[in-house]
Amino acid sequence: MSTPDAQTAVVLLSGGLDSATALAMARAEGLRCHALSIDYGQRHRAELDAARAVAYQLGAAAHTIVPLDLRPIGGSALTDAGIAVPETPTDGIPVTYVPARNTLLLALALGLAEVADAGRIVVGVNALDYSGYPDCRPAFIDAFQQLARVATKAGVEGRAPSIDAPLIDLSKAEIIRRGTDLGVDYSLTVSCYQADDRGRGCGRCDSCRLRAEGFRAAGLPDPTRYV
Amino acid sequence: MSTPDAQTAVVLLSGGLDSATALAMARAEGLRCHALSIDYGQRHRAELDAARAVAYQLGAAAHTIVPLDLRPIGGSALTDAGIAVPETPTDGIPVTYVPARNTLLLALALGLAEVADAGRIVVGVNALDYSGYPDCRPAFIDAFQQLARVATKAGVEGRAPSIDAPLIDLSKAEIIRRGTDLGVDYSLTVSCYQADDRGRGCGRCDSCRLRAEGFRAAGLPDPTRYV
Repeated sequence: MSTPDAQTAVVLLSGGLDSATALAMARAEGLRCHALSIDYGQRHRAELDAARAVAYQLGAAAHTIVPLDLRPIGGSALTDAGIAVPETPTDGIPVTYVPARNTLLLALALGLAEVADAGRIVVGVNALDYSGYPDCRPAFIDAFQQLARVATKAGVEGRAPSIDAPLIDLSKAEIIRRGTDLGVDYSLTVSCYQADDRGRGCGRCDSCRLRAEGFRAAGLPDPTRYV
Repeated sequence: MSTPDAQTAVVLLSGGLDSATALAMARAEGLRCHALSIDYGQRHRAELDAARAVAYQLGAAAHTIVPLDLRPIGGSALTDAGIAVPETPTDGIPVTYVPARNTLLLALALGLAEVADAGRIVVGVNALDYSGYPDCRPAFIDAFQQLARVATKAGVEGRAPSIDAPLIDLSKAEIIRRGTDLGVDYSLTVSCYQADDRGRGCGRCDSCRLRAEGFRAAGLPDPTRYV
């Protein structure tokens, strides 16, 4: 039987700023990183191109893209073309919330970690500047860690991967400073919920706002391209 | 805000014997059932045709099929054409185990339940005749229930769906007797791991064996078609 490798991590990589930083932090620890992206029928498909560029720039050992079309489920501005992306802040959980998205992403990472014998799963969620999504909170990560211990063959054998959320307590500015120190080229990343096909942001959605405020608060030049 | 409907259930429907029975039990309770099937690149694609037929026969109110191609992850005889389906029993967890499969299926059901305002998720796993899969055990269902309470908008609002596994303690024979009483037409269902494109079983894999033994033990005629 193969043993899991604590030096190998599956890193969820969306093509956005946060997951690029999480990948850079894992690489800085010397981990062999297997990047995982999901083609979930998102509006902003430039994200997947960004994920490919970031995986290459940061030296991921492999990059798997899984097609998972969430449009039959819908229920989010990101997966249902009939729901508009809001351009003014809203109270509560916004319509860009994709139902059970991080549960799905971590489930796919759990499957890949088992196949790749990876001892760690890295996910770039953060609880501070998180747009109000329930599945970006520490309680969610803890519950998924418990699930991982009983859900898989590796878990049953006492070799469940750890679920690492290294950005969970950081502000957007702290994330950007950390990534900049580690050499992340943020011009490659795409955060906008409705980026154009060249990856240029709208400058108006929640995600564009959080990103721009982050660079401002970090006191660092913002390389984001806008339409 | 919409409220979840305790009389509406998302029912995971594979096209096999167990999930058909779980759907029949939910229908017998008077639940409005939204069936959910996953096109995950399984070898036995006749399962999806079976799922459609079963959803119709048992009066599901809706049937959603989500494409989720697990072949980029692989690691199972069911999703990797390079791994043969075993035709003799093996010790431990068999190669037909799909890494994190039930975690993924329940994650998709959780997303659909939120969009459809369903108060219940029904999954036809059972812990007795379960081929040794870790994600068919009560501990797994319990852990997913905990996760559901923190993973979604509905969960945060105290309206997480219940995760119901009505077959979990039943033997295959008990499942077949129950379903027969409820009018399930088992000739529509496909259990074989390598069924042909008309849904006929091989008669040799684990799943065919468990099914045939179930009908024998139940003392009921077996309508299964074999190649």
